[in-house]
Amino acid sequence: MRPQILLFGDSITEQSFRLGGWGAALADTYSRKADVLVRGYGGYNTRWALFLLHHLFPLNVAKPPAAVTIFFGANDAAILGRTSERQHVPIDEYKENLRKIVLHLKECSPTVLIVLITPPPVDEEGRDDFARSLYGENARELPERTNEVTGVYAKHCVELAKEMGIRYIDLWTKMQETEGWKKKFLSDGLHLTPDGNAVVHQEVTQVFSEAWFSPVEMPFDFPHHSQIDGKNLEKIFQERCL
Amino acid sequence: MRPQILLFGDSITEQSFRLGGWGAALADTYSRKADVLVRGYGGYNTRWALFLLHHLFPLNVAKPPAAVTIFFGANDAAILGRTSERQHVPIDEYKENLRKIVLHLKECSPTVLIVLITPPPVDEEGRDDFARSLYGENARELPERTNEVTGVYAKHCVELAKEMGIRYIDLWTKMQETEGWKKKFLSDGLHLTPDGNAVVHQEVTQVFSEAWFSPVEMPFDFPHHSQIDGKNLEKIFQERCL
Repeated sequence: MRPQILLFGDSITEQSFRLGGWGAALADTYSRKADVLVRGYGGYNTRWALFLLHHLFPLNVAKPPAAVTIFFGANDAAILGRTSERQHVPIDEYKENLRKIVLHLKECSPTVLIVLITPPPVDEEGRDDFARSLYGENARELPERTNEVTGVYAKHCVELAKEMGIRYIDLWTKMQETEGWKKKFLSDGLHLTPDGNAVVHQEVTQVFSEAWFSPVEMPFDFPHHSQIDGKNLEKIFQERCL
Repeated sequence: MRPQILLFGDSITEQSFRLGGWGAALADTYSRKADVLVRGYGGYNTRWALFLLHHLFPLNVAKPPAAVTIFFGANDAAILGRTSERQHVPIDEYKENLRKIVLHLKECSPTVLIVLITPPPVDEEGRDDFARSLYGENARELPERTNEVTGVYAKHCVELAKEMGIRYIDLWTKMQETEGWKKKFLSDGLHLTPDGNAVVHQEVTQVFSEAWFSPVEMPFDFPHHSQIDGKNLEKIFQERCL
């Protein structure tokens, strides 16, 4: 009945319904207006995400999603030769994979509102602390992700969005504009704190609103309870049921 | 593709995706297993909810929801002759309305898992404080809801569930088993704190699990990233795409 917003991404999307998460906040923002569905796959990179495309977004469905966020790159940017290299995807392939995802979504629905989100910045010290908290002295010495390398992935994500005329959120740059971003926005140097989630929620809502998908302008699906007059129920619901 | 859980109710359902909300927590619990959709209508009673039934749960759809929570009563129990009397629904009608909702859902899907949730208890002092915080000296003198009256609605909700062989959560009783429940579980004497939301999340998950809908037993929709071997991608995704 109502439009669907689909959140496609890695763990930062998968965890977006945890306490203070950006996905839950988005569902609240669009309550009685659109449904928010989470399609987050922890640890996934864009190469693996391609295998899910036809399952998550089958062609020729009656009602494809109205809006989709694509939020990958944090795993693609894992560095070769280090502990997370299994997840690494070369930068050019990352960009082409994103392109394939966008093209597939457009094939599903020519009108779908697509928003590409870059990976967030990396707090390398935070990653070190996290690795030591897990493995103590056995923790890896060299960082498995660096802010610099992730920044290259973010840049290519933005480039692709511009090439394709797609809306985007340059989260990598945006977060670093705030002083103290490392501890304020990142819980383990990579995943988001509630404050970091709030940035994503705010940015997604803003980009959606600047497109044609403003929650403020969308009507409630049914009458607000204050408009319900006990005497003319049938009439009120007849007029206001979308 | 995947099963849907639909949360049907009043403001306590509508607000369930706010910070610490039970709906968001449920979406996280069922991540990669089922979709959670919120159908919460602040201020609504069961009489008004009936008008939404055919819109929210149309008959003869290909894929009706797998599970539905029905969570009304807090407004039905508003007392006649007091400030919220507009929302009042007589107790016998409340019970019959719930029956109609259940019967409609069963007509939509004979296999749907239905859970009736009673209204939470009322902290009358908390309601007084809330009224005074809004209206100061002009606040109503007599409580618009009492714990005793709401308890009668809860009792009828449980009775109906037993009559119809439907699963239920007696939230009114459950919450009052905890010492300090008034401030611990209720924010304004009526709506839920994060702790109160946690009770609902825990109870719903437990009732779902005792039925055939255990999140722990349901498989992930796609391979866990740790099972993905870079060399045999096609094979892994072929085997594990549900």
